[in-house]
Amino acid sequence: MVKLLTSEERTLKLQPLIETGGWALVDGRDAMKKSFVFGDFVQAFAFMTLVALKAEKMDHHPEWFNVYNRVDITLSTHDCQGLSSRDIALAEIINQAASTAK
Amino acid sequence: MVKLLTSEERTLKLQPLIETGGWALVDGRDAMKKSFVFGDFVQAFAFMTLVALKAEKMDHHPEWFNVYNRVDITLSTHDCQGLSSRDIALAEIINQAASTAK
Repeated sequence: MVKLLTSEERTLKLQPLIETGGWALVDGRDAMKKSFVFGDFVQAFAFMTLVALKAEKMDHHPEWFNVYNRVDITLSTHDCQGLSSRDIALAEIINQAASTAK
Repeated sequence: MVKLLTSEERTLKLQPLIETGGWALVDGRDAMKKSFVFGDFVQAFAFMTLVALKAEKMDHHPEWFNVYNRVDITLSTHDCQGLSSRDIALAEIINQAASTAK
């Protein structure tokens, strides 16, 4: 069973993603979000495809919205109704995918 | 320049998509929306990939949200700030892609 991040994990793993990784906490929900802007739709969807393949492999999927060159992503773990280590791992993969796709 | 659908086009082309195609008008905005549910994320993203390739080819892109097996799509045309013939064409392509992906 996936567990919510502990206080210590939030300090050690979540905080760096917020302070330097471009993620933000979501109001009213234990989740994190980030928006990505690419050059065009092809670049945005190439990024989404990269993330989709990685997400499926780790069996943890994003909530995401796309319009043209913009992709807004929210991460949270359904099974524990909040942020888990899976979200940390996926956020890091997403940041890496974004730097590859740009 | 892309133009808004005329009243006649709305009756002849938009209405069938609403009455039998599963699309609905969006409140407070000249746009249409439809939600699709697939068996899992792989099927949902396969559908999105089909639509992405067609959308890029016609240079008209959806606004869409995905979480796991669900894809919510909104169509409207940025250039004319409302529904145009491009949205009709893309809605028909999307309905066809959904029946292929399922």
